Amino acid sequence: MSGITCLLELYDCPPDILDNRELIEKALRNAVDSAQATLLEQVSKQFTPQGVTALGILAESHISIHTWPEHGYAAIDIFTCGNKAMPERACEYLIEAMNAGHHTIKRVKRGTELDPASVRTALSPDRVQYHVLHV
Amino acid sequence: MSGITCLLELYDCPPDILDNRELIEKALRNAVDSAQATLLEQVSKQFTPQGVTALGILAESHISIHTWPEHGYAAIDIFTCGNKAMPERACEYLIEAMNAGHHTIKRVKRGTELDPASVRTALSPDRVQYHVLHV
Repeated sequence: MSGITCLLELYDCPPDILDNRELIEKALRNAVDSAQATLLEQVSKQFTPQGVTALGILAESHISIHTWPEHGYAAIDIFTCGNKAMPERACEYLIEAMNAGHHTIKRVKRGTELDPASVRTALSPDRVQYHVLHV
Repeated sequence: MSGITCLLELYDCPPDILDNRELIEKALRNAVDSAQATLLEQVSKQFTPQGVTALGILAESHISIHTWPEHGYAAIDIFTCGNKAMPERACEYLIEAMNAGHHTIKRVKRGTELDPASVRTALSPDRVQYHVLHV
């Protein structure tokens, strides 16, 4: 098992995009296609007075989109396992599709203790630790 | 908007727990209760030959559980916004419920550019960066 979670923050997005459930659902599907991943199931929710959540089960793990139109902000996670899917491509697609003014991406490797070759610092449960993230 | 994603890795879990869809769904619901969060919708998938994915839309964002029984491993994300929910409590519950031999937790603050008081390093898109994670 090798897995990556991309944590994507989109800022300065148009509120009318962020509050459009149909558009967010479509963006999720297109993002999955961009990543060359496989969408197995999708659920979404329109919040009141505003905001949308959309989740997708992937053959490779999951994708989530949460929007806060009042802040022009969306938080997106794409977790893929295996070597075939390209979650960064999904991020690139979503930055464009949601017309973000700026963004940040954090990549977090999952299941690192399953992979002895992974470079990681020995863990101590009560210490703050530094992990290398590719932004 | 203040949000936290807890990325929980569970190792050395019994495979029969990890491959039991009903049990994973129940663990998800109980974890949400432990976090004092609100579950709005839940979907899950049993994989062949093994493995389960369960996702939940929360009023506060989402929870996801992915299992790899063949590795005794589960990857869990709990993303909550606001100050009421306590995602760490969900982690504590799941570590116990899934009988993990050991685990790691990373806490990642979301939407940090919405909060000028957040301490963060200026971002450069082509550099590897160090972020402080509480493990």
